[in-house]
Amino acid sequence: MAKELTPRGENYSQWYNDLVIKADLAEQSAVRGCMVIKPYGYAIWEKMQRALDDKFKETGHHNAYFPIFIPKSFFCREAEHVKGFAKECAVVTHYRLRSTEDGSAVEVDPNAKLEEELIVRPTSETIIWNTYKNWIQSYRDLPILCNQWANVVRWEMRTRLFLRTAEFLWQEGHTAHETQEEAEAEARKMLDVYSDFAENFMAVPVIRGVKTANERFAGALNTYTIEALMQDGKALQSGTSHFLGQNFAKAFDVTFMNREGKSEYVWATSWGVSTRLMGALIMAHSDDNGLVLPPKLAPTQVVIVPVYKTNDERAAIAAKANEVVSRLRAKGISVLFDDNDKKKPGWKFAEYELKGFPIRIALGPRDLAKNEGEVHRRDTMEKFQMSLDGIEDRIAVLLDEMQTNIFNKAKAYRDAHITRVDTYDEFKEVLKNKGGFVSAHWDGTTETEVRIKEETKATIRCIPLGNEPEEGKCILTGNPSHQRVLFAISY
Amino acid sequence: MAKELTPRGENYSQWYNDLVIKADLAEQSAVRGCMVIKPYGYAIWEKMQRALDDKFKETGHHNAYFPIFIPKSFFCREAEHVKGFAKECAVVTHYRLRSTEDGSAVEVDPNAKLEEELIVRPTSETIIWNTYKNWIQSYRDLPILCNQWANVVRWEMRTRLFLRTAEFLWQEGHTAHETQEEAEAEARKMLDVYSDFAENFMAVPVIRGVKTANERFAGALNTYTIEALMQDGKALQSGTSHFLGQNFAKAFDVTFMNREGKSEYVWATSWGVSTRLMGALIMAHSDDNGLVLPPKLAPTQVVIVPVYKTNDERAAIAAKANEVVSRLRAKGISVLFDDNDKKKPGWKFAEYELKGFPIRIALGPRDLAKNEGEVHRRDTMEKFQMSLDGIEDRIAVLLDEMQTNIFNKAKAYRDAHITRVDTYDEFKEVLKNKGGFVSAHWDGTTETEVRIKEETKATIRCIPLGNEPEEGKCILTGNPSHQRVLFAISY
Repeated sequence: MAKELTPRGENYSQWYNDLVIKADLAEQSAVRGCMVIKPYGYAIWEKMQRALDDKFKETGHHNAYFPIFIPKSFFCREAEHVKGFAKECAVVTHYRLRSTEDGSAVEVDPNAKLEEELIVRPTSETIIWNTYKNWIQSYRDLPILCNQWANVVRWEMRTRLFLRTAEFLWQEGHTAHETQEEAEAEARKMLDVYSDFAENFMAVPVIRGVKTANERFAGALNTYTIEALMQDGKALQSGTSHFLGQNFAKAFDVTFMNREGKSEYVWATSWGVSTRLMGALIMAHSDDNGLVLPPKLAPTQVVIVPVYKTNDERAAIAAKANEVVSRLRAKGISVLFDDNDKKKPGWKFAEYELKGFPIRIALGPRDLAKNEGEVHRRDTMEKFQMSLDGIEDRIAVLLDEMQTNIFNKAKAYRDAHITRVDTYDEFKEVLKNKGGFVSAHWDGTTETEVRIKEETKATIRCIPLGNEPEEGKCILTGNPSHQRVLFAISY
Repeated sequence: MAKELTPRGENYSQWYNDLVIKADLAEQSAVRGCMVIKPYGYAIWEKMQRALDDKFKETGHHNAYFPIFIPKSFFCREAEHVKGFAKECAVVTHYRLRSTEDGSAVEVDPNAKLEEELIVRPTSETIIWNTYKNWIQSYRDLPILCNQWANVVRWEMRTRLFLRTAEFLWQEGHTAHETQEEAEAEARKMLDVYSDFAENFMAVPVIRGVKTANERFAGALNTYTIEALMQDGKALQSGTSHFLGQNFAKAFDVTFMNREGKSEYVWATSWGVSTRLMGALIMAHSDDNGLVLPPKLAPTQVVIVPVYKTNDERAAIAAKANEVVSRLRAKGISVLFDDNDKKKPGWKFAEYELKGFPIRIALGPRDLAKNEGEVHRRDTMEKFQMSLDGIEDRIAVLLDEMQTNIFNKAKAYRDAHITRVDTYDEFKEVLKNKGGFVSAHWDGTTETEVRIKEETKATIRCIPLGNEPEEGKCILTGNPSHQRVLFAISY
């Protein structure tokens, strides 16, 4: 069968690539590192966007739009920021093409060179803070709570669909505040919004924590993160929220008159999630049969597949199916009745399993006679008969149950893959044979962190929020440590 | 008053610029020709997007996402297309910055030059048809009905907020079909979707028509357009839908096996509307007091402003206002209760008029005593008392009435500004003293069209659909003509 996937156990990475392609989620484009998000993949992303956008608005944020281009000089203003992004920038140098002399092709017109090069935004702090300068005079103008849905470009050398692409889609929130406390609270609040979204919509359990200095966003004083665990035992950073202090306000000279009538630099946060979440969603739940989607993010929650031999049977089933469709829709459940006569039911079953439709209802003449449907749930692959009377209520309950079940399964796996170790040997052994998060003591220095990464590929994913203080010794240096941190090999 | 606008009668163009800035819709950014869309402007754009997106989905289209970059070589493949866009392209030539020798700044790294330059998409036909090549083998793969919401860049030399900017936001539909008939029907269908949206949501009457060969999209066989009229008598092209024939299929070698088992090139359409619609919306309805928004696109439809002297009055009004807010929201009406104590009612009245909130309800102690509110409708600036009992029903009716009234007013103006002329003198006289559309005979040649444009600045906006055949003589050349076409000076 053309659509068969490499099993996870054989080659997890190949399984992922197969799945993204065969479930029609995305594909490589002709442009190095840039992906095409196909309609089915985009429909899932739209569900994510809608849920996140609702949460942003509920928490008082407004969408806006800032230019895709950033003048090169803006980039230099914040020293750490430019260090972090300069090496992977797409640079616009000209604004016109012209015909070649023989007229056979076009070439860059050397007369149309820009005075100052423009960077295609890898993130928008600089252009936005340059804009905020004009929006902010007094504390009365604060807070500013803007979000932007946009594409960004980071010229990554090794790319993978959704996980790491040269262009990706994301949202970036950029807020401006009167006080340090308010900005820090905002950064934490948005971390909560992200973890709530990850757990309650994506059904992906996450650990909320703080990044070490070494892993901070370029220009941030503090980076908060949600870290998820994939089925291969690797961690995936799924969203970050940054407390930027006054760094960008200083770089762009953004001051305000405070309540005491004194001029002060503005406090800032930024926070973002991207199409990378698609990778997390796919890898956290899916299996060797294909995609497993939590019902809240499935573009279509229920598919009805008719099973018939004669035209009379087909007509009778269609009449009943259409009635069931109406009842499901009235309950707010998205449903497709696939009455395509060109494809066999078996083909459809496999196809909808591959694409992760949460529930399939097969309707045959014998089901109809009993006023029943054969219900198949994608998460457990169980099949059972269900009465068509009031099926909409039972399906609604089942979808909720599946959402919970998918989360619980991922959580059980994740919880079973947080391993406490006290020696470097144990640490390496767990990384090698078990994977997942490793909870270990670390002496707090970047030097140790970097050495551990070089030797094991594991990085400190985060210092979990609400971490218990605990005296111990660094697994690498034996130096004193006051808390455990979470290591993992990550995407 | 700081927020006063230049009156339309004095300087229409300045009035528009004032309004866009003062109503917080958009502003120029630090990047030449690129705008910042501010939260209030973006909220209106989001309402437009949602309504259009719903219509696209109802007509069977799916969203997808294609790369922002287009390899230069793709551009040359369709000869007319490259001619149309090469002169206004942002070109990416490098993918890395590096520190200057003295470390004080960054510069383009000459070692990071791209083998092939990338164009920031001005439109996506080429990258999309290169992708479709892999999606289409047989007639069973057709039609493909994709839409993309995206940013695009055209390096315009003279820019105006929303109307003409170097970067703008838009949607671009790209469809692939088995037959010429089907593709032509699709292009026409999407024109109807656009005109329905313009008239029923934007309340802007439009003329649906066909562009002359000279005004066609670069690479199209036929361009359909909706043309609107602004209050200064200038036309604004508000959306276009293109029948592309097999041009892009040939350029990218996209063939399919048809129902007869023969290989054939695929038929194409593309269609788009952009943030330019914001310009049309603003200019079609607004007045010297500020924005006038049709209720269906107003981010907030009703604002309640309390008018009080004492704290007791304030509390009593707030209690009542909150109850009215709940009742309005339950009817699906968006409403803001502005109980900010720092601003006077008069300031708020002016501010919400400037921002085009359709209905304002002022609530004072005397209103409360009579269980009434003072209702102000933005379109006519009328004020009247309304009972608070069942106010939600009356407000719902009033919003519908306003939507219709705003459309009717724009239509009456538009209809009064379609002038039939039979001589070139009359033609020039109407353009000079009256403006609007001029319906006149034209001999059908590009040469005549160009000469009329050079002499009068007027262009042929379209040949209206369903145009009556009529024998006549070209206003410029006197050559025979078989129908009238619509000229206008346009944005």
